[in-house]
This record gives sequence, C-alpha cells and structure tokens, in this order.
Amino acid sequence: MAVEAEDPGYLIAPDPGAARLTRVVEGVDHEGAVTRISVVEERPLTIFLNGREIVTAMTIGDYPEYLALGFLRNQGMLAEGETVLGVDHDDELETVVVRTDGTTSYEEKLQKKTRTSGCAVGTVFGDMMEGLEGVTLPQLELRSSDLYALAAQINRTPSLYLEAGAIHGTVLCRGARPLVYMEDVGRHNAVDKIAGWMRAERVAAHDKTLYTTGRLTSEMVIKTAMMGIPALASRSGFTAWGVEIARQVGLTLIGRLRGRRFVCLAGEERLLRDADPASVAEENVRHRRKSAEG
Amino acid sequence: MAVEAEDPGYLIAPDPGAARLTRVVEGVDHEGAVTRISVVEERPLTIFLNGREIVTAMTIGDYPEYLALGFLRNQGMLAEGETVLGVDHDDELETVVVRTDGTTSYEEKLQKKTRTSGCAVGTVFGDMMEGLEGVTLPQLELRSSDLYALAAQINRTPSLYLEAGAIHGTVLCRGARPLVYMEDVGRHNAVDKIAGWMRAERVAAHDKTLYTTGRLTSEMVIKTAMMGIPALASRSGFTAWGVEIARQVGLTLIGRLRGRRFVCLAGEERLLRDADPASVAEENVRHRRKSAEG
Repeated sequence: MAVEAEDPGYLIAPDPGAARLTRVVEGVDHEGAVTRISVVEERPLTIFLNGREIVTAMTIGDYPEYLALGFLRNQGMLAEGETVLGVDHDDELETVVVRTDGTTSYEEKLQKKTRTSGCAVGTVFGDMMEGLEGVTLPQLELRSSDLYALAAQINRTPSLYLEAGAIHGTVLCRGARPLVYMEDVGRHNAVDKIAGWMRAERVAAHDKTLYTTGRLTSEMVIKTAMMGIPALASRSGFTAWGVEIARQVGLTLIGRLRGRRFVCLAGEERLLRDADPASVAEENVRHRRKSAEG
Repeated sequence: MAVEAEDPGYLIAPDPGAARLTRVVEGVDHEGAVTRISVVEERPLTIFLNGREIVTAMTIGDYPEYLALGFLRNQGMLAEGETVLGVDHDDELETVVVRTDGTTSYEEKLQKKTRTSGCAVGTVFGDMMEGLEGVTLPQLELRSSDLYALAAQINRTPSLYLEAGAIHGTVLCRGARPLVYMEDVGRHNAVDKIAGWMRAERVAAHDKTLYTTGRLTSEMVIKTAMMGIPALASRSGFTAWGVEIARQVGLTLIGRLRGRRFVCLAGEERLLRDADPASVAEENVRHRRKSAEG
C-alpha cells in the first residue's frame, strides 16, 4: 500500500481540547439525573469583501480567516489572480474583512444583479454553477488502497466529532496521507476552511483527494470542483444531482466508504483497484464514527 | 399513555414511492460489481416575494408552495397579518412566486439595508434573531410518554430516509400523534415546509411539538420559536448556542431521543415524566434509522 516511509502526520489536525470550541451544557436525562455534556460551540461570523457585507456564517470559530477566504473563493467571488491585501478578523465584532487590491469581479456582478432583481441572495447559487463552466479537473489516478488507508487514519484521529458530535469534518489528503483536517458545525464551513488554507498557502490541488463525513450533495461536489480537486470521498450517501455534476466535470466520486465497502459513482476509469477488499477489516465498532448528526 | 382513542394517522406522510423524488443511480461497489442505488433528487427552487428574488433553495421538490411560504415566514419576511394573494409554482422555471397585497415590511427593510451595506445576504441571519425579540412561547406541558410514543411511530413510518437516506425529516406532532411528516435534502427545508403548511392551513402552534432527525442548532431552535411551537425534540445532538436560545425563549428542548434515552436541555419544569423509562424498549436495530448523513 502507498504509505509514505515515515508518517509526517497532519499539517493541521483537529484540536478537540481547545477551550473555545466546546462548552459543557447541563441537562436532565431520561432517568431524571443531571448530566453534563460537552457540546460544540456555534458563533456567527460575518464575512466582508472590501466594504461589502457578504454573508453571516454559523461556525465553531476556529480559523476564521481561512473560512472567509475559502468561502469567497468557493463562491467565485475571489478569483485566483486577485491579490489579497489583508484578512482582518475582529473577535469582538465577530467579523472578517477580506481586502483586495481593487474591485473584484464579484462586486461588479453584484451591482449589475442588484439593478436587475434588487437582491443578491439568489445569485450565490447561480454564480457557483456559472463558475463551474470552465472547470476541467486533472485526470488523477485514485488508488483504492489509499482510500482504505485514509479512512482508517481519519476515523482514528481525535476530533471534536468524537468528543462532542454534531459536527462535520473534511480532510484534504494526498495519496494515503491526510494533510489538513477541518471540522465545523456549519454545513460547508469545513470545506471552505480547507479552500482558504489552500489559497493562503498556495497549495496545488491537482494531486489531492478530499474526504468528508457529510453527504455528497451538489453543493459539496461543486465546491470540490471549484477547488480543482479531482477526487472526493465520503463515508455518507449522495444525491442524484451530486453524482450527475461529478460525472459532468470529471470528478472521481466515492460514497459510503466504510470498512471494506464503498461505491464509485463517477470516474470509475480513474480508480485503480489495487487493494483486495477481503484483506481490509470491517469497521471496528469502537472506532466507528457516530452519526454526523449525533 | 396519552394515545388517542382511534389513530387517524398522518395528515401528510412521506411518499417514498413517488417517482419524482428518487432516482436510481448506477455505481461500482468495492468488489467491482455494478450496483444500482435509489438516491434522493435535489433540484434548485428559486423563491420570489412579489417582484423580488429572495433565495435559491436546494430541495427534493415536493410541496414547493409550502416551502416558499414557510421559508419567508421563518425568515420574518412574511408577517402573520399579511394577506397572501397567491403562491405560483412554475415547474419548468423552477420558481415559486409568493404574492402579497402590497409591499411587505421585508421589502422596506431590504431597501434600507441595500442602501447601507449594498447587499442583503447578510441580513437573513440578523432578521431571524431580531424576529425572536418579541417571541414568548406558551408554557405547554410535555409528557415523556408522548415523546416515546412519537419516536416509536416516526421511526416505523415508511420514508424517503429509510428508502434512500441522505435526507432530513421533521414532523409536526400534537400530544402522541404525528400529524405532518416532511422530508428534504436541504438542511432546513423540511421545517420550512411544515411552517408553510401551518400558515396555509391556519394551524395553531401552541399545542404542538416539533420532532426532527437533524441536529439542534441555533437555526433550528430559532425557526421553531418563530413558528410559536413550544417544544422541540430530536434524536440527534445539539450545539451550545441552540441550548442557550431555547432557554432564553422558553422552548422545551429534548435531544438524543433514542429508545428509552433522552436528555432535556431546556424547559425541564414543563416536562411531565409520566412514563417509566425501564418499560420502554431500547431501539430495535431493524427499526433504527440510519445516520441522517447516511
């Protein structure tokens, strides 16, 4: 199996012990006993692009700068060529301001849109589909041995998920190595934080695989393609449109990756089945992740 | 237990056999065998309020009129007193237009907002918190026997979830009776469809309980409170802020309701513990719902 000679570990891993990310909440259980439960935090974070308020995201609150950068990038509001002059997070105001050197194309588009329909809320989705038009993903080979190795490592990584539940996780990987593992309570914040990290650190996408605990919806597939990542794997299910878009853009899509099982929904020709499923252990109950909704 | 003399069944139940809601997708499994999987659909639906485009929701596509009405109601864009002249769904254009008799307060607010910050995307969340300020929920008693009866019935109800997974379910209940069971792939569409049904049918909220398969986030708690429903139960987890808001508005909040287990996180004083947990069966594996992310 394609395991690197020495395991350099994660570049960014979850920090389930961080004080600001969880809080102990008191409740009363079914037997009337007071119980104290560690639960994830959830805070508003308002993202600005230059002078313009774009969105308020609900987030656990780590890596606000990456979240803002990645959100704008994945929405097509911040092009690859644009120079980011600064990303300023104000913890008290719960804001992040991303400043660029001039008016971004999004701002022009928004102004036009505002004149025609009067509101920009509806453009977010349209812009994402529009942004996909030029996308062609690199034809990277994906090894099933790497998929198994990644799933096993990620499932055993200490995380907020294992600590407190009610959270989504997304991991940027290369080959059999998980590199950056982000978590968030907001549906797509985890993947946006990875996109922001990649943009800030100028990390190449062509040789990466994205792993997620969440469902493979159209939005998840679109974001992965917008990031230029050629493979997306999840332990969860998928929607019909998610599969359709993956096939259109040439994304290798793997669903229901649990233990030795998975299903390849798109890009089968780029999947190298180099591992014998019978040699892979079924998911150990002790390591089995709880429901992402748990 | 508070079971009604005869069970009149659901007013609206899931229709997992409906042709438009699922599609068979072909994949290749871990052993290289072609496999055909029934998965839920996901379509864009753009909601207009009078002449104004508000949002594009990703939805399975059933009950578009209820979804539009409920979304606008839960965002505080459509007040209780406003007269709805029509709700027009265009299947081909994938739009719903809600028409009212005059400019709604939201439109005025939007215009003001547009002048100050130039974009309305960020107002959605602010409006929801603002809408909560006047909310006081009725002090309804919630029986633990009803909670157990509801969970057992809902878990056994045929649904898209059991059929295809990757979907959220929300059920409007009164006492031990589930009334309206909505499902959707979009995170909060299921609860918005219930809100739309309640507004269209002029259904009282004060004696209802809302059950959801999803996590109890701040947004879910806010929506329930905006609807005037005094109790919210889920088989899933919760966030710290969701619990905090529930305590502020006087909502009875029940999490992790599975088999005989649950935890009451807010409104303990309104929970009547009339059932002996020991008499309740643990969740049957055959009936246990898969992960909402599955």
